[in-house]
Amino acid sequence: MKKVFKQLLVSGMALSLLPAWNAGPAIAADAPAGTASAPALSKNVIVLIGDGMGPAQVSAARDYSRHFLNKNHLELDSYYVGQATTYADRGEDGGVMVSGEVTDSASAGTAFATGHKTYNAGISVSNEDVSKPFASVIEASEKIGKSTGLVTTARITHATPAVYASHVRNRDNESAIASQYLQDQDVDVLFGGGKQFFLSKEEKGKRTDKTIIPDFEAKGYKVVYDKQGLESLGAGAGKALGLFGSSHVDYVLDRDDTVPSLADMTGKAIEILAQNPKGFTMMIEGGRIDHAGHSNDFPSVVQEALDFDAAVKVAMDFAKKDGNTSVVVTADHETGGLSLSRDGVYEINVDAWDQEKQSSEIFAAKLKAAKSIEEIKRLVLENTGFNDLTDDEASYIMEGDGTSYAQEGAYNAVMAKRFMVGFTGHGHSAVDVGVWAYGPIADLVKGQIDNTDIAKAIAKVADVDLEGTTAEKQAEYVYPKFKVTRDGSVLYPARALSEALGVQVAWDEAAKSVVLSKDANQAAVNVETSEVTYNGAPAGFQANMDNGSLWLSLDAFKQLTRKPLTWDALSERISLK
Amino acid sequence: MKKVFKQLLVSGMALSLLPAWNAGPAIAADAPAGTASAPALSKNVIVLIGDGMGPAQVSAARDYSRHFLNKNHLELDSYYVGQATTYADRGEDGGVMVSGEVTDSASAGTAFATGHKTYNAGISVSNEDVSKPFASVIEASEKIGKSTGLVTTARITHATPAVYASHVRNRDNESAIASQYLQDQDVDVLFGGGKQFFLSKEEKGKRTDKTIIPDFEAKGYKVVYDKQGLESLGAGAGKALGLFGSSHVDYVLDRDDTVPSLADMTGKAIEILAQNPKGFTMMIEGGRIDHAGHSNDFPSVVQEALDFDAAVKVAMDFAKKDGNTSVVVTADHETGGLSLSRDGVYEINVDAWDQEKQSSEIFAAKLKAAKSIEEIKRLVLENTGFNDLTDDEASYIMEGDGTSYAQEGAYNAVMAKRFMVGFTGHGHSAVDVGVWAYGPIADLVKGQIDNTDIAKAIAKVADVDLEGTTAEKQAEYVYPKFKVTRDGSVLYPARALSEALGVQVAWDEAAKSVVLSKDANQAAVNVETSEVTYNGAPAGFQANMDNGSLWLSLDAFKQLTRKPLTWDALSERISLK
Repeated sequence: MKKVFKQLLVSGMALSLLPAWNAGPAIAADAPAGTASAPALSKNVIVLIGDGMGPAQVSAARDYSRHFLNKNHLELDSYYVGQATTYADRGEDGGVMVSGEVTDSASAGTAFATGHKTYNAGISVSNEDVSKPFASVIEASEKIGKSTGLVTTARITHATPAVYASHVRNRDNESAIASQYLQDQDVDVLFGGGKQFFLSKEEKGKRTDKTIIPDFEAKGYKVVYDKQGLESLGAGAGKALGLFGSSHVDYVLDRDDTVPSLADMTGKAIEILAQNPKGFTMMIEGGRIDHAGHSNDFPSVVQEALDFDAAVKVAMDFAKKDGNTSVVVTADHETGGLSLSRDGVYEINVDAWDQEKQSSEIFAAKLKAAKSIEEIKRLVLENTGFNDLTDDEASYIMEGDGTSYAQEGAYNAVMAKRFMVGFTGHGHSAVDVGVWAYGPIADLVKGQIDNTDIAKAIAKVADVDLEGTTAEKQAEYVYPKFKVTRDGSVLYPARALSEALGVQVAWDEAAKSVVLSKDANQAAVNVETSEVTYNGAPAGFQANMDNGSLWLSLDAFKQLTRKPLTWDALSERISLK
Repeated sequence: MKKVFKQLLVSGMALSLLPAWNAGPAIAADAPAGTASAPALSKNVIVLIGDGMGPAQVSAARDYSRHFLNKNHLELDSYYVGQATTYADRGEDGGVMVSGEVTDSASAGTAFATGHKTYNAGISVSNEDVSKPFASVIEASEKIGKSTGLVTTARITHATPAVYASHVRNRDNESAIASQYLQDQDVDVLFGGGKQFFLSKEEKGKRTDKTIIPDFEAKGYKVVYDKQGLESLGAGAGKALGLFGSSHVDYVLDRDDTVPSLADMTGKAIEILAQNPKGFTMMIEGGRIDHAGHSNDFPSVVQEALDFDAAVKVAMDFAKKDGNTSVVVTADHETGGLSLSRDGVYEINVDAWDQEKQSSEIFAAKLKAAKSIEEIKRLVLENTGFNDLTDDEASYIMEGDGTSYAQEGAYNAVMAKRFMVGFTGHGHSAVDVGVWAYGPIADLVKGQIDNTDIAKAIAKVADVDLEGTTAEKQAEYVYPKFKVTRDGSVLYPARALSEALGVQVAWDEAAKSVVLSKDANQAAVNVETSEVTYNGAPAGFQANMDNGSLWLSLDAFKQLTRKPLTWDALSERISLK
């Protein structure tokens, strides 16, 4: 029963997948105090996601607020209604477990955006060798003419916004995600970071094809790059793309006055979207609570959570004034294994939680360049006010913590001791996350729920057809595993793709061949020679046996299905149309 | 602004106390989905406390249940209604912070039993130099003729049961707590461990006075000591004392068939208490989730949480059948800083969570006696099935983890790596805890609440007078700080005790004396000579200056107030009657 566990980076990877043992049906929220009747509808729905905002992150932000801001409660607090399980579908890669009880943002996002579990790294596609797309509440809202928006402090192409308006097997494919925003969807407002995935390499971006910002402009998007640009957008902007950073939007601690807060972005997005008489559906993500959790930068965890909380207030204020809006708030998972105490001491040092000047992300460059432990001590004093670093601590910071977080991780570990908080790692954890809600949706997400219930609740109150939209998406594309041969040919898993395309698969023992058939047509692949025949005649289809599994080129399936199947190399999907 | 933090043992200590900066008023639970009207009353109220059961403990128990028990949900899950803040009143001891954001079970218990915050270690007394008692919902229920019960897997004299039926400045005074159960209160059913605080030292107990079990029997209690004794109690037993262990009741992993489960105790207690036509109020504690959290014994954390969950089912089943019962479930705090993942790996190893045979508490004795790392490896293999211990790990276990948990702590740390979970220490943490409820009380405890709101909600649905009962208790006793001089005299803080007794305090600069006056009587203490006069004549009252504060014997206050004040040395309180 031993499993091998693998260090999974924040970014995902292609996975081979097993059926989930753990996808039990979620119970309905049936806290006995209330009686849930058929919910009223809401013209508008706002989802807010605190990425990496587990229970301890929320408690910490409240402690800070009480201590430094003279506010005993978070904006969130009065809307608390329940908590959600977050587990992913089980996924393995060559016998190595990479997905299960502990979700990543892609898998969790797919769950609360589409109502379906998937594997870690999957962006709104199913947990199969040939994945099918799942439609999100944003896509289903677009279909009936609502306006839609995605707002985040992470890259706009990062997993949490991506699950609402794109479909890829691997969350790392952010160029494809940006292109899908442009071509496949019609999201009206896109605010976040991630300019690099809209720019070609020649323009200091990451795209290998071309800069796509002019294409957005041609489609009617106003494109802005800073807080002043954001403010200049009128309520009647219609479509707007705001890219407030090459990668993620700066941390709160590092922002200057050109960088908007999440509340700034939220306010402007709502202003634009609220013009549609049919209503809107939008998602707002506090994307960097997670990043600070990963690096264990506790003061940034707190500041990013408060930045998110301020955006919650903007959304709630609108909803209350509007009177026809549901708001639901949750997290995708906890990050860092944060706990509020450590080492057996019965106190936390809240007094010191406001001492960090720069985020550790920015500050780490200085630590990395430091030449002596004296320099480390001076730098830490400058950034935190702590003048009591021991030689051991300073040496540890110089050396790094042995993870990819290196000096930054070591610095944050040394600081966490002073803040009297603890982290158990640089990854996510499997604790349930909070759910907060306002409006008709509240009755549908209260109590103990699963994250998939959130998508289902939104579909109900927004009166959109998730399953119908999913059926349309699934008629357009499949998202297969694939491999590229030395000569550049692309091969697909024959059995799984056959199943997805309605092709029969049989084994001919005498001919040592896999036989694929559809209607009157038949392709046969000799597994010993990899020779392929089509209706008895030699065929030029490429075939490859790998570990007992047959991989085949798309030509074979085009012939068998008589469909104009095409390979979209950017989005790594087969068009079925 | 630097504070010194002190290692606080699980057991508390006498504290000098500062006013709390953080005791902001709790917001009412007003999740917008429901509209809270005046609640219906409940004849019976059952409170269940999972001691140390933070969010991650609950998620872990569910993961185990899904993986090994084929149950996707805990009994608790469908009753989830909200979460509670747990912070204690601020307390310092000689400039050392020992109480604040991170609560212990005494402070948290006082909050949810009486509706008042106090300092860590305080058992239902106020956070003052001369503490006043706060009445609990159990005491207020007794006053109107309801039956009452306390059930726990910890010692029945441990903090969580103690806060419901006793008042002491320091939770360590468990002999006094047992005596107060006998003399001051009238709790009908007391089931738990802790026999040692009912037995004299001669009888292998901890009491310096005498064995008090005959006194319980004389008062009508049936006294039982094992599962068979528990089962033999009839529904008409009336009063019952069950002591199922010298200290705590055995961990689930270590129980034989003489030891009842928490569900066994709960079922019997309800059977007895439900005979009262006026109804009952009872508290049931899963007391050892906390202990396993302290030692970081993860498999025991899970098993104790499931043992608690089974007791929740017994309570809920009764409540549903009865139709006139409210049930509320919460935790006092999280213990251990548990997180479900570690070291940046995106998975937990649930497969291995059932491998521990004995709790680490029992197993530690064997580890401590081991003479070689080979022996350590063999022992660990026997108790867990893991045969892959490295030499480094085995050496670490032999040496101990550097805390008082020694070999046990090191063993649990090595095992936690295999379970893929993390702990950040051996103490409590400040994360919010869950709240679950059934019946009329649910509307009063839903959303984001403070732990004090639970006592207030119980008082409402049980229709008992908490503040009136508190006023009666406060007319009977005060609980002062005190010190004992070399000759055995007991001295009290003059200013604080004067304030509590309505004695005026003034400073006479000319006479270098503190002047205490009440009505026409006056005592004066020369702070330079410690000489005391009473109405002008020399008085035999003992006085002592300590760090600028005056301490005085009780004689002075007896004279001034003309009241028969007496010192109860066991409960460390002054009787005012």
